[in-house]
Amino acid sequence: MARVPETRPFFVVADPAVLRAAATRLGADAPVAPVTPEEAARAFGTALPVVALATSVAATPGSPDPRSASGTIAAIETAVALTRCGRAAAVVTNPIAKHVLHAAGFSHPGHTEFLAELARGADGSVPRPVMMIWSEALAVVPVTIHIPLRAVPDALTVDVIVETGRIVARDLRERFGIAAPRLALAGLNPHAGESGSLGSEDRDVVEPAIACLRAEGIDASGPYPADTMFHERARQGYDVALAMYHDQALIPIKTIAFDEGVNVTLGLPFVRTSPDHGTAFDIAGRGIARPDSLIAALKLASRLAPAGGRVT
Amino acid sequence: MARVPETRPFFVVADPAVLRAAATRLGADAPVAPVTPEEAARAFGTALPVVALATSVAATPGSPDPRSASGTIAAIETAVALTRCGRAAAVVTNPIAKHVLHAAGFSHPGHTEFLAELARGADGSVPRPVMMIWSEALAVVPVTIHIPLRAVPDALTVDVIVETGRIVARDLRERFGIAAPRLALAGLNPHAGESGSLGSEDRDVVEPAIACLRAEGIDASGPYPADTMFHERARQGYDVALAMYHDQALIPIKTIAFDEGVNVTLGLPFVRTSPDHGTAFDIAGRGIARPDSLIAALKLASRLAPAGGRVT
Repeated sequence: MARVPETRPFFVVADPAVLRAAATRLGADAPVAPVTPEEAARAFGTALPVVALATSVAATPGSPDPRSASGTIAAIETAVALTRCGRAAAVVTNPIAKHVLHAAGFSHPGHTEFLAELARGADGSVPRPVMMIWSEALAVVPVTIHIPLRAVPDALTVDVIVETGRIVARDLRERFGIAAPRLALAGLNPHAGESGSLGSEDRDVVEPAIACLRAEGIDASGPYPADTMFHERARQGYDVALAMYHDQALIPIKTIAFDEGVNVTLGLPFVRTSPDHGTAFDIAGRGIARPDSLIAALKLASRLAPAGGRVT
Repeated sequence: MARVPETRPFFVVADPAVLRAAATRLGADAPVAPVTPEEAARAFGTALPVVALATSVAATPGSPDPRSASGTIAAIETAVALTRCGRAAAVVTNPIAKHVLHAAGFSHPGHTEFLAELARGADGSVPRPVMMIWSEALAVVPVTIHIPLRAVPDALTVDVIVETGRIVARDLRERFGIAAPRLALAGLNPHAGESGSLGSEDRDVVEPAIACLRAEGIDASGPYPADTMFHERARQGYDVALAMYHDQALIPIKTIAFDEGVNVTLGLPFVRTSPDHGTAFDIAGRGIARPDSLIAALKLASRLAPAGGRVT
């Protein structure tokens, strides 16, 4: 089994038979060891530790199948439960096929919203998850995400920017160990609105949000013209860039770190990372997918997780 | 004088006294040779050839001054006139300060629109200029440019995309010598609209425009999710990316080629390139500006210009 350096011991929550069958089919030297979470670290040196699901999963790689939905959901619930009670230190999720889960009755819009629901507090409150895409070279947070571009200007409010900035600043401090994180905010419009002549939102929404964050002691700056804030010299000036919409955040990081980007969910009461790609059913089970992003997700989870734990 | 490799002989249209004073002030070994366009190539080996303006220019570097506006305008008019009558092979413009020209009565919205006006045909028609930002690694064309983000979805029509694509395909063929240029069109919305669930414009506007271009024999494809089309492997699949708005085009190219980007105007009856940066009055006259983009603009003009000419 190829060793992944720089991660803590981890285990997979799955049906061991599915992983064994995949290894056999690919002719991979990847022994699978069914374990309890507490046994995982010892097994890690010689096998892939697997904490078994209660039920078996029938799945053919590359064939989306609603019958596998309950196993997928159970794996996520188990990983979160083990992490919340301290038997694991962080959750690393793999891509899920939302349309398959929805066909099987899954009611959450996506993976991240489901995790937020699983993180519901004793008082019934659900935390607001914030998506960060992280790589060694650049970290970005889109303030609005999966909405049509036409809907972005109205979705962008002082409140949503400030709330996002607060969560980002707190998690960069507490999880990433950056004492005074520097947040650079992109403008919404070309040239950050050019003093209002190319759109009013940068002056009327983004600037006041930055002023609020600064008043709270957060090192927020901008709004910067988005096109000139992502080249190598510019990136030295901040720890994370807050972009106003999906492509403004995702274009620069996928342009420079396509295979190494990690999706980190901030704002949850536990560490959660994920590879920054989808299910890729077209190449599933053929042994040709690049593992870079999953490895990067495991490394980052190992770095962010509370000391002493293992990663699930 | 530092030599610029890979360019043809070029001359500057300017007041020679201004250039001499700049060289003296900076202690630069940069002799200035007032010439006619026809004498420029011979002088080029030993001095900077300058075709003098009819009037002198009073300018202090870093001090925007409306009195220099007439000289700026005359320099552009002269360069275009010399190029249109075959005494030069291409125009390379330098950044202008629009607000200074506007204060002096200049009525065109920008440099490119002025050049289009100077290219007015015998029948009175004004060509439609198309901005391409070009570098060795990536060439991008924003279909809409300097408008608020909020205005982009309605400004984007099948007609404007098709017209832009036609001009791009023709100039890549005729000027860049690419026999069958491959145009990759970005989607407007995240994930190119995800079959309409994240916005209708990709299905209703971008897709039909691509179909029109293909029906004309142009190798246009897309709409592609914008975030995954600019990394190194993806860039091998096309010669130019057509983006739907300013930042979608400018973010990727300025992220990977910040100092080497060249602004090329397609659709004009002559070759025009320009450095991809502004006037930078804050560092003007101090000898510290990076010349990379201007050098890249001179090289590209030399490559695109009709054989046998010089570049102005």
